[in-house]
Amino acid sequence: MRREKGLLIVLSGPSGVGKGTVCGALRKHDTHIQYSVSATTRNPRAGEEDGVSYFFKSKQEFERMIRENELLEYAQYVDNYYGTPRQYVEDTIAKGHDVILEIEVQGALQVKETFPEGVFIFLMPPSIKELRNRIEGRGTESQDLIDSRMTIAKDEIDLMDKYDYVVENDEVELAVERIKSIVTAENCKKERLIHLYKELVEE
Amino acid sequence: MRREKGLLIVLSGPSGVGKGTVCGALRKHDTHIQYSVSATTRNPRAGEEDGVSYFFKSKQEFERMIRENELLEYAQYVDNYYGTPRQYVEDTIAKGHDVILEIEVQGALQVKETFPEGVFIFLMPPSIKELRNRIEGRGTESQDLIDSRMTIAKDEIDLMDKYDYVVENDEVELAVERIKSIVTAENCKKERLIHLYKELVEE
Repeated sequence: MRREKGLLIVLSGPSGVGKGTVCGALRKHDTHIQYSVSATTRNPRAGEEDGVSYFFKSKQEFERMIRENELLEYAQYVDNYYGTPRQYVEDTIAKGHDVILEIEVQGALQVKETFPEGVFIFLMPPSIKELRNRIEGRGTESQDLIDSRMTIAKDEIDLMDKYDYVVENDEVELAVERIKSIVTAENCKKERLIHLYKELVEE
Repeated sequence: MRREKGLLIVLSGPSGVGKGTVCGALRKHDTHIQYSVSATTRNPRAGEEDGVSYFFKSKQEFERMIRENELLEYAQYVDNYYGTPRQYVEDTIAKGHDVILEIEVQGALQVKETFPEGVFIFLMPPSIKELRNRIEGRGTESQDLIDSRMTIAKDEIDLMDKYDYVVENDEVELAVERIKSIVTAENCKKERLIHLYKELVEE
């Protein structure tokens, strides 16, 4: 298939749904999809490489990036910033590669504002009961914390409307196949291809 | 994945692109996709079964179907009518099955008017040279006829804009995989699923 630019795929969903597991399984497939590299102000840990694990930035540099709209989204956890540099995404899709970004719902909504041409996929638990099982399955949390996580998760599901696709995570490999299909289909969208084919006919 | 209704997939493209070959190859995959059954006024041939090969209709009955908008599209060839009954498509998608309709460009544009919620896929040759090879490859046609077919094919390609997706038929199995991906992705579209999931959360 002809193509001009790659796509930014944003994979999100309520906490506990298994975004990390699905994204990890997708990496094992031979898809040519690139993985977005985050920027952070935290210190590198042993074995972490700048530009691979993260782009490591000083607090001053990160705040400059915020001011100059160089981030598709960012958040502060404890004392550190984390965010998605626009440049890496733009460069990768300009080369014709698709990029995937796995991110919490609040971050995805920021990306929707800063990069609306992205493809937004909402990963969904097969049932609310199953979501509770997964949240409880993490083990050590108190009942109050579990209840509060469930409330947050339900609020996050209410934001599904902002997304383009809903993928059920009933089985990890099925969810991966659905995501791969969405990427293939998006690359076949008429809007993305019509000018390439118009040139073909005029040759 | 949850689902409520199936989809109508309309597979079209310029004459000579290989719609029949691709649709035939798709049938060999285990996709659960149903194939639309046409209505016709021509006489059944040996082995043809009513409701399977075609719905066989009298001229009078067919013209009543036209008047009462019971056809998604129709055309007259020589002395016979051919068309796509709406009822079969509606019944099949109501049961949650996807239906595929392989059809010429003019017919597809009629379906776009009568059933705009369909998913319209334009099958495209990898190059104009390859399209000419395929048209010439049929063998017996004169140069004038080949040139006139090429002109028609180019006019048909100009109608690509009316479609949702463009699938390149560079290799039949690749084209089939792209069509399967489009069907999967369309079934993951938020618009088709959100109310099912809203109910899930409210349970």
